[in-house]
Amino acid sequence: MTQVTTDPFNALRERLAELADLRSVAQLLDWDQQTMMPPRGAPARAETVATVQRLSHEMFVADETGRLLAAAAAHLDGAPPDSDDAALVRVVTRRWEKARRVPSKLAADLARAASIGQQAWIAARRDADFAGFAPYLERNFELVRRYIDCFDDFDCAYDALLDDYEPGGRTAEVSSLFDELKGELRSIINALSDRAGRVDDSFLHGHFPVDGQRRLVTWLIEQMGFDRAGWRIDDAIHPFATGFGNRDVRITTRWDERFLPTSLYGAMHECGHGLYEEGVAQSLQRTPLGHPESLALHESQSRLWENMVGRGRPFCGVLVPRIAEVFGDGARVGVEEFYRAVNRVTPSLIRVEADEVTYSLHIVVRFELEQELVEGRLAVRDLPEAWNARYEEYLGIPVPDDAQGVLQDVHWSSGLIGYFPTYALGNLIAGQLFERAHQDVPDLDAQLSAGQLHDLREWLRDKVHRHGAKFSTAELLPTVVGGPIEVGPFIAYLKGKLSQVYDLDLR
Amino acid sequence: MTQVTTDPFNALRERLAELADLRSVAQLLDWDQQTMMPPRGAPARAETVATVQRLSHEMFVADETGRLLAAAAAHLDGAPPDSDDAALVRVVTRRWEKARRVPSKLAADLARAASIGQQAWIAARRDADFAGFAPYLERNFELVRRYIDCFDDFDCAYDALLDDYEPGGRTAEVSSLFDELKGELRSIINALSDRAGRVDDSFLHGHFPVDGQRRLVTWLIEQMGFDRAGWRIDDAIHPFATGFGNRDVRITTRWDERFLPTSLYGAMHECGHGLYEEGVAQSLQRTPLGHPESLALHESQSRLWENMVGRGRPFCGVLVPRIAEVFGDGARVGVEEFYRAVNRVTPSLIRVEADEVTYSLHIVVRFELEQELVEGRLAVRDLPEAWNARYEEYLGIPVPDDAQGVLQDVHWSSGLIGYFPTYALGNLIAGQLFERAHQDVPDLDAQLSAGQLHDLREWLRDKVHRHGAKFSTAELLPTVVGGPIEVGPFIAYLKGKLSQVYDLDLR
Repeated sequence: MTQVTTDPFNALRERLAELADLRSVAQLLDWDQQTMMPPRGAPARAETVATVQRLSHEMFVADETGRLLAAAAAHLDGAPPDSDDAALVRVVTRRWEKARRVPSKLAADLARAASIGQQAWIAARRDADFAGFAPYLERNFELVRRYIDCFDDFDCAYDALLDDYEPGGRTAEVSSLFDELKGELRSIINALSDRAGRVDDSFLHGHFPVDGQRRLVTWLIEQMGFDRAGWRIDDAIHPFATGFGNRDVRITTRWDERFLPTSLYGAMHECGHGLYEEGVAQSLQRTPLGHPESLALHESQSRLWENMVGRGRPFCGVLVPRIAEVFGDGARVGVEEFYRAVNRVTPSLIRVEADEVTYSLHIVVRFELEQELVEGRLAVRDLPEAWNARYEEYLGIPVPDDAQGVLQDVHWSSGLIGYFPTYALGNLIAGQLFERAHQDVPDLDAQLSAGQLHDLREWLRDKVHRHGAKFSTAELLPTVVGGPIEVGPFIAYLKGKLSQVYDLDLR
Repeated sequence: MTQVTTDPFNALRERLAELADLRSVAQLLDWDQQTMMPPRGAPARAETVATVQRLSHEMFVADETGRLLAAAAAHLDGAPPDSDDAALVRVVTRRWEKARRVPSKLAADLARAASIGQQAWIAARRDADFAGFAPYLERNFELVRRYIDCFDDFDCAYDALLDDYEPGGRTAEVSSLFDELKGELRSIINALSDRAGRVDDSFLHGHFPVDGQRRLVTWLIEQMGFDRAGWRIDDAIHPFATGFGNRDVRITTRWDERFLPTSLYGAMHECGHGLYEEGVAQSLQRTPLGHPESLALHESQSRLWENMVGRGRPFCGVLVPRIAEVFGDGARVGVEEFYRAVNRVTPSLIRVEADEVTYSLHIVVRFELEQELVEGRLAVRDLPEAWNARYEEYLGIPVPDDAQGVLQDVHWSSGLIGYFPTYALGNLIAGQLFERAHQDVPDLDAQLSAGQLHDLREWLRDKVHRHGAKFSTAELLPTVVGGPIEVGPFIAYLKGKLSQVYDLDLR
């Protein structure tokens, strides 16, 4: 014992382990609120969340944490930068320096407002009542501006937010990637515009009893690695995934009896997130590196499984007979027909139901609007109008009501501002990883055709999952694909798929 | 605002509100572990629980809490002892003085061992494997002995434990009540012994599909006051009730397809607990008085609803037609027949399924054994043998395996030692309250016959629930029934009922 306690890392790890525990508490409070809590519990829950946030924040930003970090840093003894110890000191020091600037009171206020706002959003979305929701949203943006004011070392206001969800991410870089992406997507949409009628997806809009969907989804996620000894799946209005360490992973989904893909691809998406949480190395558990930090990397996992595997031609051959088995002859359809249907490109209102091409345009709308809101160029009361105008402009569709418009996503209600761009960045990274996986696992398509998901999962675990939060995207991605985030592979992937689906040569 | 903050109560209340939040967190971690958590999550959960316990304990026992309590006490200005302020200072000071004696490390160790032990118990009970469970139990008793060693102002070791579950409770007083109770129960059992065959409850052992039970239980608890806007009901191996404030009350139950009373009366029992949590006055929310503290009072509520209402002749007239409605003609039975069946007295193995007469003997066994274990007069390894011998002696039945014997209850696995006597005390108090309620609500039986539970619930709310933890049993009970805990009313109630059920005059 004495040998161990002389290591300055032990004192640091002990303190950080308690902080990791408090993070689990915060995650559980949120998971419970979104899946289990009776609605009248919301006000008390908001106070509880705020208290946990305040305690956690105070413990983290304390001078003592800095002292322990410094002692550990001095003791690194030339440990390689990719060692657990070096990464722990590097990552935590960066977070500590950022968090120290934020008063505990503000951290608690942000947490409380997020919890209250989320509950208000549920009712507002149900009633398509933006006016009733606006005060909560104003409060969240006001607090977020006060949060931004804590920093003076970012290039722009939005950078301070983006950095929380995509460490090291910069607004200018994202804007540049998105400009390129937008151009590419527009040209694909234009190329497909006179072929809109060629793909029939009417059979996806049938009647699919929830019981059958549950059976299908259970089978599907079990193929991916879901194991009830260490996982749960529950219902939620806005599906999400969370983990309390790598042995308690929880995903959620929602069910639409009239549209099968909602649960099917929603569950694959969340299970992709869950695999990332589950795949983090045991040595990083109960440390701040135990949960992936970059939401762009996180989203690359969910979308790789959902779209590149789940909507890919090889795995469609596995899905189709299974669907017919569960729902009977009425759901029998050709693999080719199914493959085309689930890849149909058509501008739509709801982000989470969007196809792979238009999806990123939904993100661009949000990315632009939240910058304007944060910088005060747009007032909350004018948001629905701005939202609807942007949808008309980018996607060419009118928004009939706010429930299908500005109220569709939970994020802003929960104070998650600066989060949306990570979704589109995730698409790009997924394109890069999927391309690389095909190089490293040469018979990958044959495996997917046979429903064998093991090698792909293990490849992702080895290349991405096991590292947890050790590396930023800018640090990790080059070690896997040889460079930074790029638009090219994702667009090449889309063009390849859509050339098949729409019988034309986009390449 | 300045006016308010000059009040020394505000600083105290603010600190105590955060402690109440941490209590909610601890409750949620436990609720989740018992209802939702995948089994592999247990080790991480144990760490999380320990951290929350340690932080909470440290914050509570800090000198600062004592300083705030003293300042508030000095500011009471002759506030009446039953005022919220006076009760807050009185109750919290007592808890603070007790908690201060316990090192934070020990508090965390106790919490961690409880969480780990509970998980080990689930497997041990399933496999009837006491040997595998013994090390966890030894650990819990070892820690509890270290806990007892923190105090020097109790008459005996067990008093220090009992006081945690029944504030101010004394082992000597409980022993004396239990001696009287045991004698009375024995004489009832003897009087009934040659009439055992007179009551037929075979129709309770039929086939009752869980779906139907869920419908029945939902209807039943809604009659009692369950409202899904502020309540939940879930499945649990060992049913319990908990509350995160008075607007988020959660109860649990279990289902036995072959024995209807398990879910029916189990749910009434837990709903009785839930009503107590829900009934606490709004002014006490987010204070340490916001949750009832005496588990004897708590149990009086659950058993009053379960047995005195649920198994009472008047309400049986409401239950019986409803059961037939849900389960069809096969479940049709006469009210009188049902009333007799659910009140059948017969010694049995499982405490939670015991009748009202033998139930308290199950408690006496545990009360005696845990004193012996705590005082070192009995070793954990010898516990199953001692348990089985005591069941033979008091209940006259052999124990076939440890799952139906010493492993049947979760309590000891979770470190809840000194808790069991509150169950039998609850029976006694319920007898006193139900007698008094009949005096205050003269047509109570007529109301129960009509399925009207409102007046009884409101009477309990007014007399008991709204006070939360303001008063100990010794303080509260005399204001409601005119004296301390007594055996008489409970025995009179039992004799009255059993005279009807068994067609004889026990009085």
